[in-house]
Amino acid sequence: MAPNVEFLLRLGDNALVLGHRLSEWCGHAPVLEEDIALANVALDLIGQTQLWLELAGEAEGEGRSADDLAFLRDAWDFRNALLVEQPNGDFGQTMMRQFLFDAWHKPYLTALTGAKDDKIAAIADKAVKEVTYHLERSSDVVIALGDGTDESHGRMQTALDRLWPYVGELFIPDAVDAALPGIAPDMDKVRSSFDTTLASVMNDATLTVPDSNFAHKGGRTGARHSEHLGHMLTQMQWLQRAYPGATW
Amino acid sequence: MAPNVEFLLRLGDNALVLGHRLSEWCGHAPVLEEDIALANVALDLIGQTQLWLELAGEAEGEGRSADDLAFLRDAWDFRNALLVEQPNGDFGQTMMRQFLFDAWHKPYLTALTGAKDDKIAAIADKAVKEVTYHLERSSDVVIALGDGTDESHGRMQTALDRLWPYVGELFIPDAVDAALPGIAPDMDKVRSSFDTTLASVMNDATLTVPDSNFAHKGGRTGARHSEHLGHMLTQMQWLQRAYPGATW
Repeated sequence: MAPNVEFLLRLGDNALVLGHRLSEWCGHAPVLEEDIALANVALDLIGQTQLWLELAGEAEGEGRSADDLAFLRDAWDFRNALLVEQPNGDFGQTMMRQFLFDAWHKPYLTALTGAKDDKIAAIADKAVKEVTYHLERSSDVVIALGDGTDESHGRMQTALDRLWPYVGELFIPDAVDAALPGIAPDMDKVRSSFDTTLASVMNDATLTVPDSNFAHKGGRTGARHSEHLGHMLTQMQWLQRAYPGATW
Repeated sequence: MAPNVEFLLRLGDNALVLGHRLSEWCGHAPVLEEDIALANVALDLIGQTQLWLELAGEAEGEGRSADDLAFLRDAWDFRNALLVEQPNGDFGQTMMRQFLFDAWHKPYLTALTGAKDDKIAAIADKAVKEVTYHLERSSDVVIALGDGTDESHGRMQTALDRLWPYVGELFIPDAVDAALPGIAPDMDKVRSSFDTTLASVMNDATLTVPDSNFAHKGGRTGARHSEHLGHMLTQMQWLQRAYPGATW
């Protein structure tokens, strides 16, 4: 696959998979305001998906639409990071996953706004405004729950411990990035921004970042997704699989 | 739909949906022996599914195979009772669901062995041998867990309370049964046998049958399934939906 197509799929698939995960909360969140907030973040991410995957389809040049890419690929063709396909767990785990992703997503998109590709820069420019709000919100919730009751603190620490091994993958550059100078962000700079945000939020949340650099990988390259992605796709894709070409 | 087709779909869909539910335990049961036992019961039920749905396809006369009926119908075309589509819950809930179904299934199939239709009688004759063993096993487990520790007793009573509203539907005759004299079992006799088994097992299990005749319905007629069936079908049917006509 051409590096620029793979690069765009990674962006689109992260947004798609996390957006779908968040949509699973619809009607189930602990309070109405959080339910609506989660749905709004999900809609932002699905909107970004549409833009990235449409561009990926154009770059590929085989006539595949964003919908085709979202609904008619199998697990091994997805290029999202493993973090975003992890199950929702409780509300705290969902918000911890969101914070960890947002804290990467914002500096990554910020870097992309300066990409030497006008279409990519334009999408990043739109998306980073939304993601700035996502990060504010997920930071606030992580702090409130981490520095909350014994119960909420314990759950947030458990969530951080559970998700931490999926963070490292977000920052591992590979041949795809190397093939796109002037476009692919400098991962060291993204990591530096992430680390600053992480230290500040975890300090306020009274949570302890695990002392381990172990990182599961294989999602971003498509080499090995966790079993959760396949189960998610059966639900996400069923309608288009059962009724091919169905439209509203 | 012709009554004989609908009648056969009810038999096949009960076996298919419960068989699939049990297969979800594969590799997850509390001990190895139970894992294998659940898988064996699942295989028996899937074997019965093959026979009933093949006969349903023949009776329908539109060239649909058992696989077509299993994998290419949507939720509203399924004719299983609501009981069998209920989620597995914990091991106790799964075994309570199994017992309640088996205690109906055995006398129902026993009656069918005398049906004035050689093919139906022959399948029932084969199936009832397997189901006799299923009922022995589920009865033993329900008694052991009901008359066990406080924890297991509490879980089994919770499971019974949870599932009881789905039992009544199994015994409600309708126009399909009325249209098949000499074939459709006498529901009063089936209920009588069920009640005798239930009273004996619940007594030994020290469990209390809820004092309510309320019965959810709509599964057996296809009028209204619970939301659980649709989610189950996305997983059960995904392969044939995503790769139409795929074979081993």
